[in-house]
Amino acid sequence: MNKNKKVNAAILIIGNEILSGRTQDTNTSTLATWLNSLGVTVAEVRVIPDVEKTIIDSINLLRSKYNYVFTTGGIGPTHDDITAMSISKAFGIKYEVHKEAFKILEDYYKPGEFNKGRQKMAWMPEKAKLILNPSSGAPGFSVENVYCLPGVPLILKSMLGGIVNSIVGGDPIISFTISLRTVESEIAYYITDIQNKNPDVEIGSYPFFKAGKLGVSIVLRTPDQKKIDACSHEIFDFVKQKSIQIVKNQ
Amino acid sequence: MNKNKKVNAAILIIGNEILSGRTQDTNTSTLATWLNSLGVTVAEVRVIPDVEKTIIDSINLLRSKYNYVFTTGGIGPTHDDITAMSISKAFGIKYEVHKEAFKILEDYYKPGEFNKGRQKMAWMPEKAKLILNPSSGAPGFSVENVYCLPGVPLILKSMLGGIVNSIVGGDPIISFTISLRTVESEIAYYITDIQNKNPDVEIGSYPFFKAGKLGVSIVLRTPDQKKIDACSHEIFDFVKQKSIQIVKNQ
Repeated sequence: MNKNKKVNAAILIIGNEILSGRTQDTNTSTLATWLNSLGVTVAEVRVIPDVEKTIIDSINLLRSKYNYVFTTGGIGPTHDDITAMSISKAFGIKYEVHKEAFKILEDYYKPGEFNKGRQKMAWMPEKAKLILNPSSGAPGFSVENVYCLPGVPLILKSMLGGIVNSIVGGDPIISFTISLRTVESEIAYYITDIQNKNPDVEIGSYPFFKAGKLGVSIVLRTPDQKKIDACSHEIFDFVKQKSIQIVKNQ
Repeated sequence: MNKNKKVNAAILIIGNEILSGRTQDTNTSTLATWLNSLGVTVAEVRVIPDVEKTIIDSINLLRSKYNYVFTTGGIGPTHDDITAMSISKAFGIKYEVHKEAFKILEDYYKPGEFNKGRQKMAWMPEKAKLILNPSSGAPGFSVENVYCLPGVPLILKSMLGGIVNSIVGGDPIISFTISLRTVESEIAYYITDIQNKNPDVEIGSYPFFKAGKLGVSIVLRTPDQKKIDACSHEIFDFVKQKSIQIVKNQ
């Protein structure tokens, strides 16, 4: 394990349906939460259309820039599913029938139902490693540091367990949230001061509106529990001093 | 109006809370739907952290590549709100108090409440045009083709009406959806054939699962109603021929 090291990833959402606004992406949040729990920071997310050149260029840039790249979408049976072919071209390797994937799909469908459309899902970059799909048969795949997952959120979620052991994260990032009954502009000055005194802690400030009341969540993030403790004590001190109410369970 | 012309945009989501998975972004879908209705295609979305250099580099790349850039997030009163300063640096212009924004904020708050944190929201790139905020006072702003909006979804939505007249779109993209009681792999072959015969229509295929049943939505997109008509007739023909059920109101 590469401990005491920062490990990062990019997420590449491939799909015209997100760019048109028709579909609300939720895979970013799923992947980001999961990656953070493994000690992998998501450095960047891109949403791009189903256009071969754009996919190739994005993959080649992101895979050289970050430790991991996760793609979602474009690995189904239809004409607009061009992720596998584009990944092959990005790596300059053959796009061919993956024997194991073909066997999985052949076994999954009833005799006579494994038609041409379904066979397309067995076409992958040469020597791709399969990512098994417990929900609907068709596997995802990885090539080097690029992991290709489907766009359907429930299926994507069901496949993460199959790759968890192949992701080597850094120190897990600890996140600690303090929610306050106040507005950002009342506390900005104090939080800025605490951020300046604690440069290694990423302090975020997020307004919320719940059950008719305004509040602000202060989120502390760092791999170091001691730094979380020190920083949160400073926040509790000024909260007490200013008589600001702490909101539980936000 | 630049009609018969393609007009595109990029969306830049600025915020660590999206990259950590803590917050589910919904602004992309809001902005994309709204931009499409104005004849503006969203070519790309990026989600980036609250890091000055990343914001500057992303802005300078996207504003030269696309007709419009829309940013969300980072224009509040706290230390992690660095969008306005970063935009100033990206354009190489002064970051200063915007007199009109200062006046709006001063009028919005009760006497004595317009503190330093709130005054920060009046700091903007020199000569920025204000985007009025009917929800919570603090305005957004635009510089050339870059429009900076807040991250809070309800506030962002309330501000779009104020800039609709400054966005010059191309031909509106017409979208037509045919939802079928089938699975993608049963129809992939026919849809591929129809796509090949209708290269000017963007045909997307999206599986859905609703009320316990699987289905596929075929989405046709083009600015040309005649092409939508021709293409949808071809789809209805094969749907009839194959006795596939059409699903209403999906």
